[in-house]
Amino acid sequence: MMDILQFAQLLNRVREMRPLVHHITNAVTINDCANITLHTGGAPVMAHAPEEVEEMVGLASSLVLNIGTLTSSQVEAMLLAGKQANHRGIPVVVDPVGAGATRFRTESVRRILEEVQVAILKGNAAEIATLAGERAEVRGVDAGEVAVDPIQTAETLARQLNSVVVVTGKTDIITDGTRTACIDNGHPMMGCITGTGCMGASVLGCFAPVVDDPWVAAVAAVTAYTIAGEIGGEQADGPGSFKWRFFDAMAGLNAEMIAEKAKIRQVAPSPNP
Amino acid sequence: MMDILQFAQLLNRVREMRPLVHHITNAVTINDCANITLHTGGAPVMAHAPEEVEEMVGLASSLVLNIGTLTSSQVEAMLLAGKQANHRGIPVVVDPVGAGATRFRTESVRRILEEVQVAILKGNAAEIATLAGERAEVRGVDAGEVAVDPIQTAETLARQLNSVVVVTGKTDIITDGTRTACIDNGHPMMGCITGTGCMGASVLGCFAPVVDDPWVAAVAAVTAYTIAGEIGGEQADGPGSFKWRFFDAMAGLNAEMIAEKAKIRQVAPSPNP
Amino acid sequence: MMDILQFAQLLNRVREMRPLVHHITNAVTINDCANITLHTGGAPVMAHAPEEVEEMVGLASSLVLNIGTLTSSQVEAMLLAGKQANHRGIPVVVDPVGAGATRFRTESVRRILEEVQVAILKGNAAEIATLAGERAEVRGVDAGEVAVDPIQTAETLARQLNSVVVVTGKTDIITDGTRTACIDNGHPMMGCITGTGCMGASVLGCFAPVVDDPWVAAVAAVTAYTIAGEIGGEQADGPGSFKWRFFDAMAGLNAEMIAEKAKIRQVAPSPNP
Repeated sequence: MMDILQFAQLLNRVREMRPLVHHITNAVTINDCANITLHTGGAPVMAHAPEEVEEMVGLASSLVLNIGTLTSSQVEAMLLAGKQANHRGIPVVVDPVGAGATRFRTESVRRILEEVQVAILKGNAAEIATLAGERAEVRGVDAGEVAVDPIQTAETLARQLNSVVVVTGKTDIITDGTRTACIDNGHPMMGCITGTGCMGASVLGCFAPVVDDPWVAAVAAVTAYTIAGEIGGEQADGPGSFKWRFFDAMAGLNAEMIAEKAKIRQVAPSPNP
Repeated sequence: MMDILQFAQLLNRVREMRPLVHHITNAVTINDCANITLHTGGAPVMAHAPEEVEEMVGLASSLVLNIGTLTSSQVEAMLLAGKQANHRGIPVVVDPVGAGATRFRTESVRRILEEVQVAILKGNAAEIATLAGERAEVRGVDAGEVAVDPIQTAETLARQLNSVVVVTGKTDIITDGTRTACIDNGHPMMGCITGTGCMGASVLGCFAPVVDDPWVAAVAAVTAYTIAGEIGGEQADGPGSFKWRFFDAMAGLNAEMIAEKAKIRQVAPSPNP
Repeated sequence: MMDILQFAQLLNRVREMRPLVHHITNAVTINDCANITLHTGGAPVMAHAPEEVEEMVGLASSLVLNIGTLTSSQVEAMLLAGKQANHRGIPVVVDPVGAGATRFRTESVRRILEEVQVAILKGNAAEIATLAGERAEVRGVDAGEVAVDPIQTAETLARQLNSVVVVTGKTDIITDGTRTACIDNGHPMMGCITGTGCMGASVLGCFAPVVDDPWVAAVAAVTAYTIAGEIGGEQADGPGSFKWRFFDAMAGLNAEMIAEKAKIRQVAPSPNP
């Protein structure tokens, strides 16, 4: 059986360490990402100029790359920063927002995944299927219909990239190709605001530096985050009030609340295809 | 008489269709625009790299162009996206934020209006007067004093561009040069936060794809939006609490509430000058 | 003794004048900066294209430069805008976010301070120490440990630059090198959200144009802003609810509340080193 408390207590470690999480991220949710990093217990820094990203990575505990409003200058900065993060041995989290929607996005993410060793790749089912080479319908930055089994796709991709793969959805899937967990926390209200996915990557960036095993970090991060979403969602009257209640819930979250509410199940690995 | 219910029920159609609204927009309110699109019932996608905008337009139901923090690269992207939207026959909404304040803004919008067939052009009285070639005082991105009759100016410009023109203010004006409606909904609190204008353009982008007549779409969109502002404003203690209550109101709005509260009057066309 | 009422009543002057505050600022907190400017009583305009910044400065009452997500194109725009502001005689406020963290930031701010006469320079203790040539630990955009006496450092830098220097922290320091005030207002919650520093620069940009003496403007601005933070903080359940309560508090603030709550003390100048 999994030790829920082990995951729950990682939040305390985030708050003790206060990791500096360097983001190269999109313009839509950059403010939300900075705030959720603070509320989780990390310290955000946003810097995307190619002139400074390597030096900024030198101060950071982790690096979050999000392609939500990608430009060619950002791709350059992401590659520079990602390689420097690899050189320094700090974890890299990639959020392939809208991969599959345009060639520019798909090819840019592929290039990042080729040139940078990524600790955690987090996307919705369509984005992950696209990167695994499956056919998937991507509708802008939303997941459309995905024909394949998302767990098997994620496990295959995780083994291929030697990364932890997180597939977000009603049930979140976290796999390193060998161990696979499903998390059933969360609230429908999380889909009613923009930025829920992006903020999830920031929380992964807070947890990744506090434990050597990125799969453990990812399970703990997704559990904490979706429980905060649950608490915020239960109190909200609509998406506007959900957002600030979600922030309050994340800042007020503690290990006991996580241990009590966590719905994590480890699943048997899919047979290799 | 106008059929209020016809306008009110378009909100249901937005929610059934869930149109993908591609924005090329400013950095100030990009998060608000994404959220209000979700709360109205659409799906937002923000993409501004010249490398991908044409492909993204290919997935979209409408295109919103907002020049609030314009750069030369954005102008290029807007022209590419706008022409592709015309080619595909999806409606283009333009928000000429601050037109008249600088030559760069005025000339960029003029170029967009020349090279792209725009379904709905939405601005404040000063921006619209500037684009109509009238003298207007533009103070940054706020409307200053406008000497001319805004209804007549809007009607002339609408005929000239073959577009629907929306002039926002205490009373909102919507005209296609032949039919002109005035809407008296809204709340003073809407002027106390940034982004009310930009978000209005996003709501127009949600309604434009669900009905063939862009004037009907614009009347319905402005009515729904300003009624949500009214509901949010009545409950707010200040501009901070207004913003999230406004979001909650937009998400909770339905056709019955619109039909009950709408203050739409169709006015006789101005004599041609 | 200082006349608290003199400072308190400047808020009324901001609201009478409604100064247009031109920002060239970062992507993280640009929305917050626009909103706090409105809630203080100013009118924000955000414009950063080199093609238009000089013309936009021509309409503005003050200019706020913030390097939080600096790019080389922004440096160019800041220099153009800053020189034009000097030419027109309107006050320039500089927020050197993360100076000391990377050479790109430190050198860009140094260049701005050399080429532009700055009315008010506002940073945390580490940023100000960096710009004064002291050794300081800068951790991303947060202040780390600073070895030196921040008051003396600020006074020396103020004399050197002929600027007012504001050092933010638990106690805020405002000095022009001759007069030095310490302000003990504020709330710990202000450190729990992103943007508190950036928004402070916007409020300085609102107050700077309404009085000839930038030290008086800065004392009044910091006092008003931190009192709003206090009021918001006392009512908040967490950082999410703090943010909108803080906005409500800023919008609802008046001179009487400031006069009642202000904790300003003028301190004797440090001996010259």
